[in-house]
Amino acid sequence: MFRSVLALLCAAAPVPLLAQSVGPPVDPQVAALRDAALADDYAWDIVEGLTTEVGPRLAGTPAEARARAWAVAKLFGLGFSNIRVEPFELPVWVRGEEKAEIVAPFPQPLVITALGNSGATPPQGIVAEVVGFDSMEEFAASPAEAVRGKIVFVSHAMPANQDGSGYGLFGAPRRQGPTLASKRGAAAIVIRSIGTDHHRNPHTGVQEFADGAAPIPAGALSIPDAEQLQRILKRARGPVTMRLTMTPRNIGVRRSGNVIAELPGRDRAAAPILVGCHLDSWDLGTGAVDDGAGCAIVAAAAKRIMDAGQPLRTIRIVWFGAEEVGLFGGLDYQKKHGAEPHYAVAESDFGADRIWKVDSKLGEARKAEAKALQRALAPLGIVPGSLTEADGSDIGPLIAAGVPAVGLNQDGTRYFDLHHTPDDTLDKIDIAQLRQNVAAWTAMLAILSGGIEPEPKPLQRKRR
Amino acid sequence: MFRSVLALLCAAAPVPLLAQSVGPPVDPQVAALRDAALADDYAWDIVEGLTTEVGPRLAGTPAEARARAWAVAKLFGLGFSNIRVEPFELPVWVRGEEKAEIVAPFPQPLVITALGNSGATPPQGIVAEVVGFDSMEEFAASPAEAVRGKIVFVSHAMPANQDGSGYGLFGAPRRQGPTLASKRGAAAIVIRSIGTDHHRNPHTGVQEFADGAAPIPAGALSIPDAEQLQRILKRARGPVTMRLTMTPRNIGVRRSGNVIAELPGRDRAAAPILVGCHLDSWDLGTGAVDDGAGCAIVAAAAKRIMDAGQPLRTIRIVWFGAEEVGLFGGLDYQKKHGAEPHYAVAESDFGADRIWKVDSKLGEARKAEAKALQRALAPLGIVPGSLTEADGSDIGPLIAAGVPAVGLNQDGTRYFDLHHTPDDTLDKIDIAQLRQNVAAWTAMLAILSGGIEPEPKPLQRKRR
Repeated sequence: MFRSVLALLCAAAPVPLLAQSVGPPVDPQVAALRDAALADDYAWDIVEGLTTEVGPRLAGTPAEARARAWAVAKLFGLGFSNIRVEPFELPVWVRGEEKAEIVAPFPQPLVITALGNSGATPPQGIVAEVVGFDSMEEFAASPAEAVRGKIVFVSHAMPANQDGSGYGLFGAPRRQGPTLASKRGAAAIVIRSIGTDHHRNPHTGVQEFADGAAPIPAGALSIPDAEQLQRILKRARGPVTMRLTMTPRNIGVRRSGNVIAELPGRDRAAAPILVGCHLDSWDLGTGAVDDGAGCAIVAAAAKRIMDAGQPLRTIRIVWFGAEEVGLFGGLDYQKKHGAEPHYAVAESDFGADRIWKVDSKLGEARKAEAKALQRALAPLGIVPGSLTEADGSDIGPLIAAGVPAVGLNQDGTRYFDLHHTPDDTLDKIDIAQLRQNVAAWTAMLAILSGGIEPEPKPLQRKRR
Repeated sequence: MFRSVLALLCAAAPVPLLAQSVGPPVDPQVAALRDAALADDYAWDIVEGLTTEVGPRLAGTPAEARARAWAVAKLFGLGFSNIRVEPFELPVWVRGEEKAEIVAPFPQPLVITALGNSGATPPQGIVAEVVGFDSMEEFAASPAEAVRGKIVFVSHAMPANQDGSGYGLFGAPRRQGPTLASKRGAAAIVIRSIGTDHHRNPHTGVQEFADGAAPIPAGALSIPDAEQLQRILKRARGPVTMRLTMTPRNIGVRRSGNVIAELPGRDRAAAPILVGCHLDSWDLGTGAVDDGAGCAIVAAAAKRIMDAGQPLRTIRIVWFGAEEVGLFGGLDYQKKHGAEPHYAVAESDFGADRIWKVDSKLGEARKAEAKALQRALAPLGIVPGSLTEADGSDIGPLIAAGVPAVGLNQDGTRYFDLHHTPDDTLDKIDIAQLRQNVAAWTAMLAILSGGIEPEPKPLQRKRR
């Protein structure tokens, strides 16, 4: 009887209890590199430098070009090799004036910003009645004629959460709202910013007018302003009218590029490990958490491997261009390098707060490597996640094509407080959490790069 | 021996131990009114209404006039008597365009707002070198010729604290900076906002060019932008130049006014109790914590007394005008009513967070009343403070002239995150803390008004 119960218990446990407690110890070199990285200063220096000396860097603009020049100089100064910019082109949209005010019944200004690819109002703005909806679903279900010639206002109820899943679930007003409003003949659309803060900093972000919908003015109110508009609509006894002025422009096709640098491995024939981030930012903030921090983390981790010696496999850093406006950099890299082998790819693009979970998709044959990674990260408070899934923005096309990948998932609870707002600035980065990121990425690179040899480092590292 | 030690202990205690534990019990009527107010809805309704239906209400502007009309209607609707507006005039300064950008070496925009009474730049702005100082003291001690023709930048290190004392200690860059910069021939001055947050919402506030100093452009950078400018100055190898565009205007003398309403007491010959706040706000936010909440708290407390019956003494509500720009309302009230007796005065003008300490200055003869007040507020978590000091902004002149006063001190830890910024909006108010305020003010009014009689309320309350 007792034996049967035990057998049942063992069979019912999702993972055999004994298997959870054993496994090879963490490689001492990996552990030492990981722990030393908790005092890292490289990452802070990179993100401080980029956000201070360049600041905002919208894709395709001179500011992004300055960021590339800064990046090349910085990566060269850190001692990386094979530094190059791979250029590509994209259509560029730039912000103009942007203002909103309630005309009646309660005159007052509201804080707004244009969404990417928004159409423009005339310079003097437009005045129209506001029709409010609590969600994209409510807007979609409303009679089509209800918004003709009017300003659509769509709210939502996005909560903060750890994994950022709310962005997918509640981002519809930005992604689908403008197209639907255009198709229904609305004069314009304003949405509650896709975010989780309560500051008067609106969240911009890209959207595309789909299915031939003509561009109309499309803006995001800061969350306090969106809530104010809801109260105004509720308290008004008659129509609420808004004056909206937004004058963005499409300035044509311009150049962007991916900045690439390498720490060459001992085995030049081996497939490289790609670690990425995106160099461009939205124009409202200085792109500290999105994604200066990511570039800082991956480069700092690679630099720490470099300082320790030479890995077996080449580590390739890619600071992608033009991510925010449509993943242009990732698609360009896929086009140029998608057919080449990659040992693994990973991207840091979810802020600067601590990593809480490690996912990987290295394949059944590399399960031991994935498990070793989980064990090496556990002392950083990182829980084991999936062994069959990992994602990333610019590396998405590579992963979709079957390239092995690692996902070091950051805590996103604060991320959508700052995302795409003027408030995405250096002061929001917690250096202790930034360093935990560097430690995790360093450990990951130490494991996946196949072992670091301290000799003969000086001869093999060529700079150009 | 034992008795001697006990005697010594008793003598050494700052207050006799027994005396701390005795004292008359709290009047059951006071306690009941206090506790019922913890479920108050009047205050929220008032502050939501004012901030939504009027919004920003800069002194002397049509928005402040709309606020007075709103206030008269609201106070009438609540059933108060003797409602009147006492008008006065003041010179009015209004904001224009405001922009700042680093021209070299790291081109990027900065978020700025003009300080009250700032001079203007030409419409196209000015471009000048920035000279930075870490404090007003450092600026004052620098050679006078160091800033001639340049843009002075003054920082400071104001911390958040509970009683707001940092505002006095660290506010010098705003109060004295512009005058000193003008006298030294600076082209303009920009300061680190006098605040404690880290959001890109600059803090405006009044300043006066003193001693014949000519107005120059004077602005406040948001705190992240001020820190960015410090980093830029530190990382630049040569001069840092800024383009500054601010076009505020003085529009001449305009009208403001104090809105006054009363709950008449049974003894019409008795001196009234004045409870105040200020109705005007800065123009950037909707004036929720500064000072819509204050107006809501004092009126809600008076309304709760009204609902319970009729007090012995008249309760006079004063929603002062034009506080932010120079205490004009308080000075006008003092001029018109300073010679009349007031039983006590109190003002709520430090946000909407919980009251943590009660001060009073009722005089030696009314010590029992002051002690009763302390006892009645203790269950709200309010500690006893001074019996010889109390303050307030608009009531300052009355207190200085010797009028008895009560100070219900709010926790100011968050206050300077929001003070004078675009972020001063309704969503920042915590209703539980707002209700604790109403409970404290209700208890205070119940005690000082000399006892409430439930009859014959309907006959004695006249509206006009």
